[in-house]
Amino acid sequence: MNTTDATDTLDSSATKDTSVSPRKPCVAFLSAVLDMHYLVPAFKAACPGIDLRLGSDLGKLDEIDAALCWYPPAGVMSQMPNLRLVQSVGAGVDHILAVPDLPASASLCRIVDPDMARGMVAYVTWAVIHRHRHMDDYIESARSHSWVEQPVVAPRKHRVGIAGLGTLGMACARTLLGIGYSVCGWSRSAKSDLPEGLAAYAGNDTLGEFLGQCDTLICLLPLTDETRGFLNEKLFAQLPKGAHLINVGRGDHLVEADLLTALASGQVGAATLDALTQEPLPAEHPFWADPRILITPHIATRTSPDVIAAQMLNNLTVLDAGGRPRWQTDPATGY
Amino acid sequence: MNTTDATDTLDSSATKDTSVSPRKPCVAFLSAVLDMHYLVPAFKAACPGIDLRLGSDLGKLDEIDAALCWYPPAGVMSQMPNLRLVQSVGAGVDHILAVPDLPASASLCRIVDPDMARGMVAYVTWAVIHRHRHMDDYIESARSHSWVEQPVVAPRKHRVGIAGLGTLGMACARTLLGIGYSVCGWSRSAKSDLPEGLAAYAGNDTLGEFLGQCDTLICLLPLTDETRGFLNEKLFAQLPKGAHLINVGRGDHLVEADLLTALASGQVGAATLDALTQEPLPAEHPFWADPRILITPHIATRTSPDVIAAQMLNNLTVLDAGGRPRWQTDPATGY
Repeated sequence: MNTTDATDTLDSSATKDTSVSPRKPCVAFLSAVLDMHYLVPAFKAACPGIDLRLGSDLGKLDEIDAALCWYPPAGVMSQMPNLRLVQSVGAGVDHILAVPDLPASASLCRIVDPDMARGMVAYVTWAVIHRHRHMDDYIESARSHSWVEQPVVAPRKHRVGIAGLGTLGMACARTLLGIGYSVCGWSRSAKSDLPEGLAAYAGNDTLGEFLGQCDTLICLLPLTDETRGFLNEKLFAQLPKGAHLINVGRGDHLVEADLLTALASGQVGAATLDALTQEPLPAEHPFWADPRILITPHIATRTSPDVIAAQMLNNLTVLDAGGRPRWQTDPATGY
Repeated sequence: MNTTDATDTLDSSATKDTSVSPRKPCVAFLSAVLDMHYLVPAFKAACPGIDLRLGSDLGKLDEIDAALCWYPPAGVMSQMPNLRLVQSVGAGVDHILAVPDLPASASLCRIVDPDMARGMVAYVTWAVIHRHRHMDDYIESARSHSWVEQPVVAPRKHRVGIAGLGTLGMACARTLLGIGYSVCGWSRSAKSDLPEGLAAYAGNDTLGEFLGQCDTLICLLPLTDETRGFLNEKLFAQLPKGAHLINVGRGDHLVEADLLTALASGQVGAATLDALTQEPLPAEHPFWADPRILITPHIATRTSPDVIAAQMLNNLTVLDAGGRPRWQTDPATGY
């Protein structure tokens, strides 16, 4: 990756080549919550002379071809008449669909990349084993210098359910099956190319049957109007008593009060949460204080800046040639 | 599994069938450190009428066909003139070779079973991710209700080395490669059927080159005279600075004082130890107090009693038919 200082002035490289080569794309970086300067060097390396716009002054908005977004501010993209591509920096596009001004003419794309899937697989695999094999208890025992054995249960006797069988859910299923876990999966619509050994369920009619088999439930659904609040009291009641919930979807998949109720009754035994409605989670939030909840600061996976730059620039090239980017997303479904 | 109370008198079942069927095998359970009664129901279920001997009175020693061992006492097996099989309850036989009276006429066998491999894979995978992805830091931050991000490094940028490419080492390599880690392996002699993507080294001449690539080093070697003290100061010095050591071999692979020295200098950054020379590890042992060391109570994997019973009885059948059991072990090499 290019190691250019992220605080380089953008104008110098933006204007350098315009007289001798075809016009370089003009890309705006839009986020209401994140300083996106860390992405600048990768874009400059991938496309010398690219016209990058970020910060409070985006220049002439009719020059902007594409917007790279993470929770973009509202009211900006609708003022970009020539916007052809709206690119998410992550696997989800919910943070983009949440603003009302997504131009209908622009293609909406998300990032799908092997490192992102691998990072997610590592996180999810760790979280499943951490509770199933009582690693949390061993860490606690070690604090008091205590040698205390917990039951060793073979992976095949532990049932893991994955809600959401997209690229990330499938990758997690493959690794967990490889270790020997009993894995089932649920998605809204039926999927093809299922890994061998995966018991797959599709549609709302099968949700209860799926949930009944989840000693560990992993939420990897996209966040849409249909899945907001998916992890609620009614769902928890259908899990085996004492189940472990892993939420690596979005914070808004979870009804927080319902989780606290389910933990209090023992219906849910533990929760590992990497995505929360309020991020950073405030220090006074009750989730921190419950030893059965482990909070991680939205780190399950990341995409490297060079991958984001390469995929976004390729999407623009495909669009300019009249094609459809591979990871173009339907705004109506969110995936 | 049979649920018969493990404290059943053994004599009743031992004498029941002798008049009406061929003589049932006579098996002694030998351990100086473990109460082996928990294995009785599985053997009775697998072979009704089996003659089991355990405890202080083993009866007539010339009747004993086979010994099931976990750290057997010295001076006992040499008094069993008709012993044909010495069976370890685990994957290793070092605890048997440590006693001087192993009869040359008996076959020495170890247990190899898919659940044991899967349990080990789950433990090792957890331990690799736990440190590489800073899960230990997140658990610590959560105690003070702190949302602190650590670097997210893609698995392919983390190099895991496995010392010992037997059944367990190969199974760990496959899963870690599947998650995307860069995996290399080392064994005393060259191996075939290597997983795709595994960089394999064989023999002492290549050990230094191997060690230089181990951001995480996993010890899964058999314990032999050659590998006792393998994890020592000289070896640590050849690792990348700050490497993570995972010992799931035996406690005697590790020179304990050398680990403390290497942690003090920062040459080793962390250690996850499931096997220790003294088990249970005494509360006053310095390993407990070092936050960079995580101790787990020898739980990386277990073999279920029914698998031990089935494999041992099958080994006897194979021997009686003049064959060689699949997992017969060479006492000279220990694997």
